[in-house]
Amino acid sequence: MYRFTNDYSEGAHPSILEAMAATNLEGNFGYGCDPHCENAAALIRKKIARPDADVHFFVGGTQTNATCICAFLRPHEAAIAAHSGHICVHETGAVEATGHKCIAMPAAPGGKLTPELVRQAVAAHPDEHMVKPRLVYVSNTTEVGGVYTTEELKALRAVCDELGLLLYLDGARLASALACGGASLEDLGALCDAFYIGGTKNGALFGEAVCIMNPALKPDFRYILKQHGGMLAKGWLLGVQFEQLMQNGLFEQLGEHSTRLARQLAEGLKDLGVEFMFESPSNQIFPILPDEVLKKLEGAFHWEVNAELEGGRSCVRLVCSWATEEAAVTAFLLAVEGALKDCPACM
Amino acid sequence: MYRFTNDYSEGAHPSILEAMAATNLEGNFGYGCDPHCENAAALIRKKIARPDADVHFFVGGTQTNATCICAFLRPHEAAIAAHSGHICVHETGAVEATGHKCIAMPAAPGGKLTPELVRQAVAAHPDEHMVKPRLVYVSNTTEVGGVYTTEELKALRAVCDELGLLLYLDGARLASALACGGASLEDLGALCDAFYIGGTKNGALFGEAVCIMNPALKPDFRYILKQHGGMLAKGWLLGVQFEQLMQNGLFEQLGEHSTRLARQLAEGLKDLGVEFMFESPSNQIFPILPDEVLKKLEGAFHWEVNAELEGGRSCVRLVCSWATEEAAVTAFLLAVEGALKDCPACM
Amino acid sequence: MYRFTNDYSEGAHPSILEAMAATNLEGNFGYGCDPHCENAAALIRKKIARPDADVHFFVGGTQTNATCICAFLRPHEAAIAAHSGHICVHETGAVEATGHKCIAMPAAPGGKLTPELVRQAVAAHPDEHMVKPRLVYVSNTTEVGGVYTTEELKALRAVCDELGLLLYLDGARLASALACGGASLEDLGALCDAFYIGGTKNGALFGEAVCIMNPALKPDFRYILKQHGGMLAKGWLLGVQFEQLMQNGLFEQLGEHSTRLARQLAEGLKDLGVEFMFESPSNQIFPILPDEVLKKLEGAFHWEVNAELEGGRSCVRLVCSWATEEAAVTAFLLAVEGALKDCPACM
Amino acid sequence: MYRFTNDYSEGAHPSILEAMAATNLEGNFGYGCDPHCENAAALIRKKIARPDADVHFFVGGTQTNATCICAFLRPHEAAIAAHSGHICVHETGAVEATGHKCIAMPAAPGGKLTPELVRQAVAAHPDEHMVKPRLVYVSNTTEVGGVYTTEELKALRAVCDELGLLLYLDGARLASALACGGASLEDLGALCDAFYIGGTKNGALFGEAVCIMNPALKPDFRYILKQHGGMLAKGWLLGVQFEQLMQNGLFEQLGEHSTRLARQLAEGLKDLGVEFMFESPSNQIFPILPDEVLKKLEGAFHWEVNAELEGGRSCVRLVCSWATEEAAVTAFLLAVEGALKDCPACM
Repeated sequence: MYRFTNDYSEGAHPSILEAMAATNLEGNFGYGCDPHCENAAALIRKKIARPDADVHFFVGGTQTNATCICAFLRPHEAAIAAHSGHICVHETGAVEATGHKCIAMPAAPGGKLTPELVRQAVAAHPDEHMVKPRLVYVSNTTEVGGVYTTEELKALRAVCDELGLLLYLDGARLASALACGGASLEDLGALCDAFYIGGTKNGALFGEAVCIMNPALKPDFRYILKQHGGMLAKGWLLGVQFEQLMQNGLFEQLGEHSTRLARQLAEGLKDLGVEFMFESPSNQIFPILPDEVLKKLEGAFHWEVNAELEGGRSCVRLVCSWATEEAAVTAFLLAVEGALKDCPACM
Repeated sequence: MYRFTNDYSEGAHPSILEAMAATNLEGNFGYGCDPHCENAAALIRKKIARPDADVHFFVGGTQTNATCICAFLRPHEAAIAAHSGHICVHETGAVEATGHKCIAMPAAPGGKLTPELVRQAVAAHPDEHMVKPRLVYVSNTTEVGGVYTTEELKALRAVCDELGLLLYLDGARLASALACGGASLEDLGALCDAFYIGGTKNGALFGEAVCIMNPALKPDFRYILKQHGGMLAKGWLLGVQFEQLMQNGLFEQLGEHSTRLARQLAEGLKDLGVEFMFESPSNQIFPILPDEVLKKLEGAFHWEVNAELEGGRSCVRLVCSWATEEAAVTAFLLAVEGALKDCPACM
Repeated sequence: MYRFTNDYSEGAHPSILEAMAATNLEGNFGYGCDPHCENAAALIRKKIARPDADVHFFVGGTQTNATCICAFLRPHEAAIAAHSGHICVHETGAVEATGHKCIAMPAAPGGKLTPELVRQAVAAHPDEHMVKPRLVYVSNTTEVGGVYTTEELKALRAVCDELGLLLYLDGARLASALACGGASLEDLGALCDAFYIGGTKNGALFGEAVCIMNPALKPDFRYILKQHGGMLAKGWLLGVQFEQLMQNGLFEQLGEHSTRLARQLAEGLKDLGVEFMFESPSNQIFPILPDEVLKKLEGAFHWEVNAELEGGRSCVRLVCSWATEEAAVTAFLLAVEGALKDCPACM
Repeated sequence: MYRFTNDYSEGAHPSILEAMAATNLEGNFGYGCDPHCENAAALIRKKIARPDADVHFFVGGTQTNATCICAFLRPHEAAIAAHSGHICVHETGAVEATGHKCIAMPAAPGGKLTPELVRQAVAAHPDEHMVKPRLVYVSNTTEVGGVYTTEELKALRAVCDELGLLLYLDGARLASALACGGASLEDLGALCDAFYIGGTKNGALFGEAVCIMNPALKPDFRYILKQHGGMLAKGWLLGVQFEQLMQNGLFEQLGEHSTRLARQLAEGLKDLGVEFMFESPSNQIFPILPDEVLKKLEGAFHWEVNAELEGGRSCVRLVCSWATEEAAVTAFLLAVEGALKDCPACM
């Protein structure tokens, strides 16, 4: 069985497991106050070219987003996000549970926010009878595989500056964004008030590293990290993992791997005449396949159905991870080709 | 200056002021535990034909909605509302501040939810990675003057029963809904899990009466009323006002008055060739007028601009209240007629 | 039946009712944006000698406290209060419902906080695994009738400055505090970051006026006022009431009246040999009376039992209000005297 | 350097690390929907003799407590806990951040709640102006090393049944409680509405297993788990760890180890004439040592200071973990003995 289900179906890159085993009995202070977290933070600060950034480690993405947004906003302030944004859809209202509205805007192609959408959101909330838009939430890559370039983020930064908004970037799949033309880590350090570098979906067992550049957002962040249950007792486990990811280009290599295999898969499908629901250059792709074809692949491959369409077709999501093997891609393409041959009418 | 700004620009109907003065020094227990509240609750139970209903009095609508929704839902549950619903737009995120997401659906004409929209909202939230839709929020009249009939509410009740949802109705402008074909108080008592009868916008100084029919929603409601700051110390002030409203048909008469004058205004404008943004049979209407005409009326009348349109026209909201005088309507129509004559090109 | 139950058993001072009737049909903008609120705010700014203060009107005390504390604190920050403080005991966890812990300290005599207690509270919360004490909550008068003098508040201000804390004063019974040696309104304006002037318990139908002096606490307060359901639609009703209270010394006169009668009651009881649970110079007193005596008074008077004590005695709370008549005091003292005579053994 | 700092200074028992490595590339569904979590849950159900229990896995204790209490309570309901309880002191107000008050009671010896304390807490909250006590929070072992026996928990269960309360047990250090006479896992399954089995402090990298027996508390728990950021993407990591802990008596062995070494340490100190702040039979002990002695030990050992006492002495907390070696205990005792000899006057 080959899995294209998601990018968190396998554990950690071997070097990370080894590092965890090697440090297992070191004896470290808890709660992230250890040399591994310090070192990992220093490596991150260097990569993002912000020696002044505060770096905090979390276990998972939902917790990271809810904690950051809760920490950064006053009670009446709201986040602006694409309608398909992770905080709007897939976090069981975690942001609202901290008291804040997510203003969901119909996304531009690629699931992206644009300066114009941000302006619209702000214009629609003119007075104190409404929430006050204060933070722009974007994901790179987005939930439908889209990628923000440096130019796009610069434009968002400009509109944020103009309108007094914070720019926060969810980097759960940042490694893939870096691998396909997305804004660089340095650019994120320069453009965002805060963002996080995702480890869970790029080779770690778990872990997300929040970088806070805006000095106004720094004070007392660890209190809120703790209050939201995000302070891992054996916190060095996060430091150890990010030490590995941030050294020897491992983070980038793993992102390039997953992205390259997804491109290969996409190109192969295009060659077979398959169409796509969204154009995605990143490690998740959204081909539209005949249900009859999907049925034939079922035993040997796994994926998620994104949408059931008319005419007996479905859009599926295929995700490649740091651990996906080239053999999986080859096998999938062969299987689709075979299934299509058996069913000439269904394309 | 004649005001069509809203239906809370004047104080209370004289009979209410008199009752408040007459009871001023009675000496009553606080917090709604007094004979006036008891009596008002009994009158309401009778009118809604639900001797089993729990009745609670609040000062204002935002507090009422936030308290009820917070009391009725578990943390992960959400309210479904029209995109234009009051809780989605005009309560500064009060529902989110209690931790719950409002699922905003694009409204049907009249700003209304339909069973189909409810179904869509539920279908879009299939698992525990998303909030769980649990309560359907409707307003009668709606924020754009629309009115739910008994048939429409029966259809919503049916879909709620089918999908395990609660039906909650915001009756801030219920008196006007009653006056123009909306579901009767008895029907609300039969169809809703809970709803409130609005006093503030229909002749009271302030006051909303929540009726809870669903027994599962009754326990400990007063705790949550208190916790949200909704328990008025001199609670009998609410009882005294609703005693007046619920006697001698006062509530209904005031609603008929405001609605009749708004109809008169609407018919008069139609006769002058004016078009409307939304069709509203209730006490707020939404005519589209040339900005040049509006400019001429500015000194003598007051209204709110709903939307600035292309071609030098605006949609304004004109609201008649229990206190609006026929003279105001006549004067407005005359003024529009005059202004239009001066500006033949602008229609 | 004479009531000493509390100071919110009667309605409003006649001049307030008259003003409300006189302005009933004026036609005002809603939500506190009207000339009466403006004027009342100006009168308050003058009285507290802080032309720079922001003034906001609320309907009731629980809502005022919860809204202010929620507006002033970040998520991990906590309020320090006396164990008997209103926010700790009698608000159904309204502050916690906004996410903040109340750190309850064992109160000094009179239900008061002292600099030493504040220091202890801060010392007990040294790091990010605990909430961060940030706001000192005091009431004047306190819940057991105690009164903070200017000197005491100056000492609290000093410790707040030293430790980076905000000083917030709940003035639900401020009028009585002013009448018996409590810090003046000018001193409150000089010493507090924010405080509120209580109308509900001093002659208004309802109403509390929040004064914010600390500029850092001012921005966007109206958003949070609205979000917590505290923005009254017919907001001018609050302005009209405070215009009356703040003119011609009405606020002070009513406080002096209730306090004077309570002193009279206390002195009379002392002359009869009655002892007191707490020493209170203000409008609520806490005598200890034999249950046998209380039984005899039951039909003619009303009070609340504060505590049932050993030896067949109870501590009762007797409260005089702006509306208490001298006849009530005389009658009560006579009745106690008579009952004691009938029961010589019970003292 | 030997560490007695806490029981989360080392990583995982080797068998757990091995299991994680062995399953690293298996390919599992995310979010705890995998065979390892299923199997671990089955093993736990068997151990607690509750085939009907729902089992959910969390990463850490603060998150577990906050999520459970938030899931189990309605908005106005409160938890009763010992003043020294973890939720009252060391979770940065995480429970309050979900809207609920923690009612802190002065603890009985051992940091324990008693039926009498529970009764007092309930008696002090008689009406809707106060929060409603609803859940009794206990920890086994407690924060000062105390242990609840089966008899003590039966008595708490009885008072909970009588007063309509839920009984929730925080088992962060449950393994040590089991090792020194605490209620058995079967008894917890029979007596608690819900409790959790702590992995983090007993040989896991991280992980706490919540067991819910009360059917009313089961529905939709996973929604709230997700909402609070507690749903680990690679959820099988928790299953794999608890599979190891729940097999071959590993959980119990590790608890016995840490407890036995702590007893050895305590007995050795007693033999040297050292006194203790709290009597603790479990894996954390609280000796009182002269500061001069502590100074001499500083370079070679690490601990936390619990309280600085008069007379140049301090109470320190010494914790033994699953990984503490006998050599550490021997070395510490020798060092204390030596230091005391050098300082005959200081005892």
